Amino acid sequence: MGRTSDAREKILAAARSLIELRGYSALGVAEICKAAGVPKGSFYHFFASKEVLALAVIDEHWAVQLRDWTRVLRGEAEPLQRLRQLFEETEAAQRAGQQSCGTVSGCLFGNLSLEMSNQTEGIRERLQQIFDAQVEMVGTVITEALERGEVTVSDIREAARSVVAQLEGQVLFAKLYNDTQRLDVLWANCLALLGARIDQDTPAAA
Amino acid sequence: MGRTSDAREKILAAARSLIELRGYSALGVAEICKAAGVPKGSFYHFFASKEVLALAVIDEHWAVQLRDWTRVLRGEAEPLQRLRQLFEETEAAQRAGQQSCGTVSGCLFGNLSLEMSNQTEGIRERLQQIFDAQVEMVGTVITEALERGEVTVSDIREAARSVVAQLEGQVLFAKLYNDTQRLDVLWANCLALLGARIDQDTPAAA
Repeated sequence: MGRTSDAREKILAAARSLIELRGYSALGVAEICKAAGVPKGSFYHFFASKEVLALAVIDEHWAVQLRDWTRVLRGEAEPLQRLRQLFEETEAAQRAGQQSCGTVSGCLFGNLSLEMSNQTEGIRERLQQIFDAQVEMVGTVITEALERGEVTVSDIREAARSVVAQLEGQVLFAKLYNDTQRLDVLWANCLALLGARIDQDTPAAA
Repeated sequence: MGRTSDAREKILAAARSLIELRGYSALGVAEICKAAGVPKGSFYHFFASKEVLALAVIDEHWAVQLRDWTRVLRGEAEPLQRLRQLFEETEAAQRAGQQSCGTVSGCLFGNLSLEMSNQTEGIRERLQQIFDAQVEMVGTVITEALERGEVTVSDIREAARSVVAQLEGQVLFAKLYNDTQRLDVLWANCLALLGARIDQDTPAAA
């Protein structure tokens, strides 16, 4: 990797880390460049504005998460077990983040949604697309579970939204209380929200 | 009301409005004073710091919300109907906010939790206390419903947390999509999360 792409990666990594720590609004380009160890001129070579950088941070994070969600939600396990695995991996990721930086950082997309969705239309639209994609992926799994008679939902999309909303709400509390155990309840709540007919006490396949 | 308390109220109102619009981190004291129409000297007469102001904004908002939650959740209606009323009033309040300022502003406490809970320990603790109080109030209602055999929950506190988490998660989406209809599903989801035994299709008493 040449120096040029190094600088871009360094800026992205620094921005990602600073946004997780302090949010987007209060960040300045100078601070990002200082943390990245690159001259300010480099910034505008790669990013036309702080908003463009934020979109790149979001896209990069979503590319990784989409790969993980696809692996889990389109995997070989039974439909509801895939959702369970998704929650377990989410909790494990939040726990790993907490161990490395001391606090639960929560969901980058949720954090940005509440911090700035009313300020920057481009970012709002991108976040909407990401959550739409998450809801669609969860909805596909619910459809499979429905075909197997394992759940009772009347509106698949609404049910998928509720599962993702419960995830975001519990991650909010995990962050606020700096306690990843808040996420333990996701699986049971998902089953309740989906009117699941399977035994809820099956041991985790973690 | 004399001029002195006028200035304090003006600063609080301006800060509340600016925090709803743009979050806390990016705000400066000068900007708040300009919006409030008071000299900067007044600010430090009333508030030792921006953090102290934020705590005052939070406390003021919670005082109003606590009054509303108490009226609804300790009211005369049957337990689960009180929760329904809480969701309906939440949706109505978000709709009123949207009509007055164009966008759904969401939950001040949720917004601040995701924007800054890892930055300012004093604010994190205050937000924890508020959500603890909300969970306790919802838990009291769930206890009553449990005694009447209307719900089936094994851990009342966990169930109350899940109801509040679902509320926060759906409010997050209502804000991101600027769509208060996202909150329509709260009542049905609450019943599902509580394993409610009553007829879910009872028309709203709105």
